[in-house]
Amino acid sequence: MSVLFADNLRFLDTTLRDGEQTPGVSLKPEQKFEIASRLSDIGVDVIEAGSAAASDGEREAIRRIADAGLSAEICTFVRALRTDIDYAADCNADSIHLVIPVSDLHIAKKMRKTRDEVVAMAMDAVEYAKERGLIVELSGEDASRADQKFLHTIFSQGVEHGADRLCFCDTVGLLTPEKAAEYIPPLAKIAPLSIHCHDDLGFAVTNTMAALKAGASCAHVTVNGLGERAGNTPFEEVVMGLEVLYGYHTRIRKELLYPLSSLVSRHTGVPLAVNKAIVGEMAFTHESGIHAHGVIREPSTYESVKPEMVGRKRRIVLGKHSGSASVEAALHEMNYKADDRQLKEIVKRVKQLGDEGKRVTDADLMAVADAVLAIECKPIIRMRQFTAVSGSNMIPTASVTLLVNDVEMTGAATGDGPVDAAMEVLRKCVGDVADIRLEEYHVDAISGGTDALVEVTVRLSKDGKIITSRGARTDIIMASVEAMIAGMNRLLRDRT
Amino acid sequence: MSVLFADNLRFLDTTLRDGEQTPGVSLKPEQKFEIASRLSDIGVDVIEAGSAAASDGEREAIRRIADAGLSAEICTFVRALRTDIDYAADCNADSIHLVIPVSDLHIAKKMRKTRDEVVAMAMDAVEYAKERGLIVELSGEDASRADQKFLHTIFSQGVEHGADRLCFCDTVGLLTPEKAAEYIPPLAKIAPLSIHCHDDLGFAVTNTMAALKAGASCAHVTVNGLGERAGNTPFEEVVMGLEVLYGYHTRIRKELLYPLSSLVSRHTGVPLAVNKAIVGEMAFTHESGIHAHGVIREPSTYESVKPEMVGRKRRIVLGKHSGSASVEAALHEMNYKADDRQLKEIVKRVKQLGDEGKRVTDADLMAVADAVLAIECKPIIRMRQFTAVSGSNMIPTASVTLLVNDVEMTGAATGDGPVDAAMEVLRKCVGDVADIRLEEYHVDAISGGTDALVEVTVRLSKDGKIITSRGARTDIIMASVEAMIAGMNRLLRDRT
Repeated sequence: MSVLFADNLRFLDTTLRDGEQTPGVSLKPEQKFEIASRLSDIGVDVIEAGSAAASDGEREAIRRIADAGLSAEICTFVRALRTDIDYAADCNADSIHLVIPVSDLHIAKKMRKTRDEVVAMAMDAVEYAKERGLIVELSGEDASRADQKFLHTIFSQGVEHGADRLCFCDTVGLLTPEKAAEYIPPLAKIAPLSIHCHDDLGFAVTNTMAALKAGASCAHVTVNGLGERAGNTPFEEVVMGLEVLYGYHTRIRKELLYPLSSLVSRHTGVPLAVNKAIVGEMAFTHESGIHAHGVIREPSTYESVKPEMVGRKRRIVLGKHSGSASVEAALHEMNYKADDRQLKEIVKRVKQLGDEGKRVTDADLMAVADAVLAIECKPIIRMRQFTAVSGSNMIPTASVTLLVNDVEMTGAATGDGPVDAAMEVLRKCVGDVADIRLEEYHVDAISGGTDALVEVTVRLSKDGKIITSRGARTDIIMASVEAMIAGMNRLLRDRT
Repeated sequence: MSVLFADNLRFLDTTLRDGEQTPGVSLKPEQKFEIASRLSDIGVDVIEAGSAAASDGEREAIRRIADAGLSAEICTFVRALRTDIDYAADCNADSIHLVIPVSDLHIAKKMRKTRDEVVAMAMDAVEYAKERGLIVELSGEDASRADQKFLHTIFSQGVEHGADRLCFCDTVGLLTPEKAAEYIPPLAKIAPLSIHCHDDLGFAVTNTMAALKAGASCAHVTVNGLGERAGNTPFEEVVMGLEVLYGYHTRIRKELLYPLSSLVSRHTGVPLAVNKAIVGEMAFTHESGIHAHGVIREPSTYESVKPEMVGRKRRIVLGKHSGSASVEAALHEMNYKADDRQLKEIVKRVKQLGDEGKRVTDADLMAVADAVLAIECKPIIRMRQFTAVSGSNMIPTASVTLLVNDVEMTGAATGDGPVDAAMEVLRKCVGDVADIRLEEYHVDAISGGTDALVEVTVRLSKDGKIITSRGARTDIIMASVEAMIAGMNRLLRDRT
C-alpha cells in the first residue's frame, strides 16, 4: 500500500523548538545538544533546533548543534524579520523555518496588518534569507483557516522569490482528513511541502497521515508529541504507523525510538502518559487475565508490534484482572511451585489485593504465596526503631536499629535529604549481610494536600536478581523505609 | 458536513472495564459508582461497568451501578460462557458486551479452538443471554485481522440467534481508515454496529472516526483514553472532533468533560500527559511569546475551542519564550507599573530564569520586578530555624522560629508526615498576622534516585488573592518550606 505516499518521505523534528515551547519546559544548551545528536543518529532529516531570536542561551545551543557536523540539516524558527534571519545565519544554521501568518484572523487580529503587508514582509524575508545563504522553508501559519487561494498565491510568490520548500501549518489543530485531501494536492505541486499539525482536538496523527497521503512529502513531528498546548504530531506514532500499518520503509532506526523518548522525557521533565502509544510505560504491559493469557501463549494476539522493535520489553503485571496463567507465570519466575488448588487460592488473594485498589508488586505476590503454601517466612530484617531529622541548620540525618538475623544493629547516616539519609542508613546496616542495591526510587506525583497518601516504589537488586516493592503512607520517609525493608526481606530469602 | 455520520451517534463508555484494565489500576466499588453516575450525567448512552466474572468486588460495583436507576444503559463484559452470563444477569446488568475471538490467530493460538467451535460457543451464549433477558452486543475480537467473510457470517448468524447489536473490535490497534472504509459498510448493514479501537500505534481516533464515517453508529470510548497497553479511543477527543471539526451535535454535556476527566484521573491514580488534548494540564496554557501575544489580543488565534466550552480556563505562564506582551499582562495583574525600558529588562531577566531551565512562578516574577523597579522589599517573614523529625515510634513533628515583622515567633506542630507538620507550623506562626490558606500542594513525580531534586509548587491564597510559588531542593521538607515562605512573603506585601 506504499503507493499512497511519496517515495522519499522526510521528517523534520521540532522537539527542540515547538516541543520546548511546552509551558514550563526549558532545555539547557547541553541538553539540547544531546537530544539533537540522538535525533540525527535515529535518522531525522531536519532538526529544528530552536528559535534563534528567543534568548542568548538559545543561540548558544543552536550554534553548538549547527557546528557539530551532524548528518541532519539544522534549522531554526524565524519570523519575517531581518533581525531574526541574522540571528539564524549567525548561529550557522543550514536552514530556516520562516513562519508567516496566512489566515485573515492571524493577519488582522494578531499582526494587525493587511494581506499585502504580510506578503511584502514574507518576500523580503525570503530574499534576505537567500542572500544570507540559508535554505528556506516558507511556512503558512494557521493555514487550515486561511483562504486557500491566498495561500496558493503567497506560496507561489515565495518560491519565485527563492523559497526552497513550503509548509502547511495546522496551528490550532482544526484540519480534517477531508480538508487535507482537498487543500494539500495543489500546494504540493508548487514545491516540496511539509505538514505541521497540532493535537488540540486529538487529530494530529489523523491529519498528518492524511496530508502525507495527499502529497505532502515531509512530516513535522516532535518526540513524545511534545509541544504547545496539546502538543504536536508524535514522531514515534507516524513512523510506526507508516511502517506497520502501511508497510512503508521510513529509514528511521526504530529500535532507538524508546531510548530517544526516555531521554526527551528526562531532559524536559515532562512525564509521559502511562498509556502513550509505543513509548508509554504500559504500552507493552499486560495485566488482564484474558490478555496476559493470550500473550503468554502467543504475543502477537495482543501486541501490534514486537516490543524489541522499538527498543522495549514486554511486562506481565498482576492485579485484580489477573487470571491463573499470569499468576502461574510469575510464580514460576520466582521459583514457587503450587498445585492447582494452591494456585487457585493465590489467584483469589491477588484479586482481593487488586479489589482494594492496590498494585500487586513482586513482594506482595511473594507474601501471598508464602501464606498459601505455608512457607515459614520469618523476616530476616526487622525494624526496632527509625528516626529522621531535617532542618534549616543541620545535615539531614537518620538512625535506625534493625534486627538482622536476630543480631541487633544500630547505625546512622546523613544524606541529601531525610529520605536519602534513611535509604543510606538501611543500606549501611544491611551491607554486612548482603550487597543490595537501590536500582530505582520512584514517587508518584503528589497532588492535593500535604496529608495525601504518598506511594513509594523501589526496585532493588542483589546478585542480578531484581525485585519491586511498595510503601504507602502519608509520611514520605516512612513510606520509603517500608518499601525498602519489605523489598530487602524478599531479596534476602534464599529460595533458589 | 454532518451528512458523513449516522443521525444518532451513540457512545459506549468502557472506562470502568477496558479503562480499569490499565495495569496498576483498580477502582473500588464506590469509586466506580461515582464515575458511572457522572458518565450518565454527561450523556453517555451505555456504560460498560466492568467484567462481572473478574472478582467479588467487581460484581458488587456492577450491581450497585445497575440498581441506581441511572439513565444510561448498564452493560458488562462477558466471554461466551454461561457462567459469565449468569454473573452479568445476577448483577442486574441491562446488557452484555459479548466478546468472541474472530481472527484465526486468536481462535487458534489463544483459544486453541476451530472456527466452528467458536461459532457454536457464540450462538449458545447469544441464545442463553437472550433467555436471561439481556440486551446483547456481539463483539468480534481482533476483527481487523479476521477473515472478513467469516466475520460477516458469525455476525449474521449472531443476529439470527438474537443479538441486538454488533461491535468491530480493533483489539491491537491495527486498523487503518482505508480498511475501515472497506470493512465497516457491509457489517453495519447487518445490525447497529459499534467501533472499538485501541491506540497501540496512535491511530485510535483516526480509526474510530473513519469507522463512524463508514456507517458505524456507536463509538466505544474511555475517559482520558485509559485502557490496556496504549489505551482506548479517548471520549473527549471523539466528542470534540465531531462537534468542532464536523459540526455534529452529540448531545454530550461538553462543559462536564474536564471535571469528568479529573475525577477519573484522581480515582484511577493515572496522571494525564500535560499535553493531552482537551483535558491535559497545558491544553489551554500559553507560554511562547508569539502565541501568548496572539491569545491576549484574540484567543481564537491560538485556541481551537474556548476553554470554558469543556469546563476549563485559559492560563498564560512565563518562561524563556515569553515576550513583552505576556510579561506586561502578568505585571499588570499584579499591580506593577513598568516603563518600556524597565519592561525590557524584566523580560530579559525572565528569559534568563527560563534559560536556566526554571519555571517562572508568580513569586519569581515579583522578585524580578522588585529588583528592576528598585522596590524596597524587606521580607515580612524571615526564618531563623526550622527542624522536622519523623520516625517509627513518634508523631511527625516540626518546629520553626520566624521573624514576622521583626517579632520573633516560635511554634511547633505535628502532622500526618514531616511535610504536613512543617506546613502546619508555618500556618500557625503566621496565622496571627494573616489568614493564608494552602490551596494546593504539588510535588512532581520523583524518579531516579533518592538524591534527585524535588520540585514543590504551592498555591496560596489570602483574601481571594492567589499566588504560586516554588521550592526546589534535594530535601522534600526544605523544598516545601522554601516554597511556602517565598509565597507567603509575596502575598503579605500590600501593593494594591
